[in-house]
Amino acid sequence: MIYMDNAATSWPKPESVYTARLNCMKKHGANPGRSGHKMAVEAGSILLYTREMLCQLFSIDNPFQMIFTMNTTESLNLAIKGCTQPGDHIITTSMEHNSVARPLKELEKINISTTYVRADSQGKIDPTDIRKAIRVNTRLIVTTHASNVTGTLVPVQEIGKIAREHGILYLVDAAQTAGIIPINLSTLPVDMMAMPGHKGLLGPQGTGVLYLAPHVRLKQLKEGGTGSQSESLVQPEFLPDRYESGTLNTPGIAGLGAGINYIIKKGQNTLLARVRRIEKFFLDALLNIPGIKVYGPTNMKDRTGAISINIKDFDSAYIANLLDEKYNIAVRGAIHCSPLAHKTIGTLKQGTVRFSPGIFNTLDEAKECIKALEQLTRLK
Amino acid sequence: MIYMDNAATSWPKPESVYTARLNCMKKHGANPGRSGHKMAVEAGSILLYTREMLCQLFSIDNPFQMIFTMNTTESLNLAIKGCTQPGDHIITTSMEHNSVARPLKELEKINISTTYVRADSQGKIDPTDIRKAIRVNTRLIVTTHASNVTGTLVPVQEIGKIAREHGILYLVDAAQTAGIIPINLSTLPVDMMAMPGHKGLLGPQGTGVLYLAPHVRLKQLKEGGTGSQSESLVQPEFLPDRYESGTLNTPGIAGLGAGINYIIKKGQNTLLARVRRIEKFFLDALLNIPGIKVYGPTNMKDRTGAISINIKDFDSAYIANLLDEKYNIAVRGAIHCSPLAHKTIGTLKQGTVRFSPGIFNTLDEAKECIKALEQLTRLK
Repeated sequence: MIYMDNAATSWPKPESVYTARLNCMKKHGANPGRSGHKMAVEAGSILLYTREMLCQLFSIDNPFQMIFTMNTTESLNLAIKGCTQPGDHIITTSMEHNSVARPLKELEKINISTTYVRADSQGKIDPTDIRKAIRVNTRLIVTTHASNVTGTLVPVQEIGKIAREHGILYLVDAAQTAGIIPINLSTLPVDMMAMPGHKGLLGPQGTGVLYLAPHVRLKQLKEGGTGSQSESLVQPEFLPDRYESGTLNTPGIAGLGAGINYIIKKGQNTLLARVRRIEKFFLDALLNIPGIKVYGPTNMKDRTGAISINIKDFDSAYIANLLDEKYNIAVRGAIHCSPLAHKTIGTLKQGTVRFSPGIFNTLDEAKECIKALEQLTRLK
Repeated sequence: MIYMDNAATSWPKPESVYTARLNCMKKHGANPGRSGHKMAVEAGSILLYTREMLCQLFSIDNPFQMIFTMNTTESLNLAIKGCTQPGDHIITTSMEHNSVARPLKELEKINISTTYVRADSQGKIDPTDIRKAIRVNTRLIVTTHASNVTGTLVPVQEIGKIAREHGILYLVDAAQTAGIIPINLSTLPVDMMAMPGHKGLLGPQGTGVLYLAPHVRLKQLKEGGTGSQSESLVQPEFLPDRYESGTLNTPGIAGLGAGINYIIKKGQNTLLARVRRIEKFFLDALLNIPGIKVYGPTNMKDRTGAISINIKDFDSAYIANLLDEKYNIAVRGAIHCSPLAHKTIGTLKQGTVRFSPGIFNTLDEAKECIKALEQLTRLK
């Protein structure tokens, strides 16, 4: 099988991820932060190790600014709901995933309004449109870092600068970029960043992260046992415990630590160059096949990750299904949980066939994909 | 090492749990419900398999009444916050874990009041006290099934009956019982039950479950991508998607399915009898050692799981530490995230030393623990 669905979850993982996860369960399987015995302490140090790996990769100092969640969706819900209250205004874009759009829709019920800044037909956002949307009650700007449909990069540096100038919080959804594109959180003007552990960071499913800048204080989404201040009925104030209630996914987090370590050891730029080479090959080839429509930017500098296409008017799920059944190529078809983005690029009905290469894909695999697509353009 | 900390998390897990988890990541590592290709479908069927295992163990028919969460704490937050609104009244007990007590404390801020029904000094709850606490605006009764401090069983059948008579929802926190004590959800008058995947159900950390009776509809805690109704900005209404946003911990859930299958195959009553034998040995021995105080019921029929003790006036964390360092016995000392329960039994300052045997402990290990404790009673 050729796996080209890394935008959904990266696969396979480095061997060290499987091993770290299994070792954690077999050898350090206690509940961290709860008991004081050796195995519980070892489990606790696994959590710290992964936080430190995150710090190293994203260039920050304090490991407790990295909050563990179940997934990016939880990180986004915590961030969005944690910093807003009735009467507030939020700015977002027409390229967001439902993990941003659905919480915002829900918040309308408690009188939190949203402006959707429209992207152009390639999914590009103009930062000046963000500036124009600012109101006196704008509390939060939330944008994706790169569209999961078109791969279009959002100018987070410029938007962050605008947010800082206006004293507005900026939350970035890095679902498609964390671990893939180098991000320096000590210089990027971002207050919160939500990330999946199981995509670019190469960890297992069931892991997510929310980065919080030192000045950000959110209302928590859940309260419960934290192993800390056990005598208190009130949720602890300090990080990360304030936001991490209940038993964490320790073996998953062990795997995540190994995944990040793999990226650091191999070199993030080296890995990125490998994927970019495949993406460029894809893009160049696709743009030259009659009958194939490519969505998103046509130049590499404005895009990363997902490559969405359609073949003539064929339903994208049908094409994805043929790729799977006839060619053993795993991609995602239809609507990618981002109706806003599909509306923007005009594919709300047809959906798109999305190829998303990862670090373990090869150029030969990409060539096979192109060959299959060429054949499929002859479909009637 | 002798691991006697199964009330925090069960360890080790059956070999099949490690294998299922690893196989899931290596062979079925796609994101379930997102794409339609073979590996994504396989991953989806892993989720369904585990739901079906839960149905079998808890005697219900519809797998979609079993909602996957990160942990019991999330299940409890979802249940408690999802069914209440300002002006409501909640009844709970003085034996609850912070995973119940802290959300209730938080809800006071939005005018949701709570009555704490007091247990006796052994942690026992009188159901008539629950009945007496009912007000016209009582929306929810939430109790633990068994105390994580004293092991005291709560009469859930009787409390559930009272709740039904009054049209009040009943939520049970089965953190210490799910997978251990047979529970028939088709006959037990319970509307919601929160469970950990990683304790009695023998699955990995990072997995929790919320059972919802067919008539229960909650406000969700998080919105986001569900892979379903992708074209809609509104959270889907149907189960389980309404409550399961974002990528699930699929490998963890694979392990959970294997854990439940292990219980079903070995026979829940057989496994329970094995643990009960160790608990009884513990209890009988402890009650006969001068200098040791045992908390909770002194007869087996009123208790399960956790056995909390103290040695004279020694700090419980100090004793737990000695057990770890000198005897290589892993237990939990201090306050077990349940200040209410510690207050009830009078150990808010001293804490308790908690032994919690699991299905892989042996009688010989229990004997070694008793020997160590006998030696420690000679401490000055």
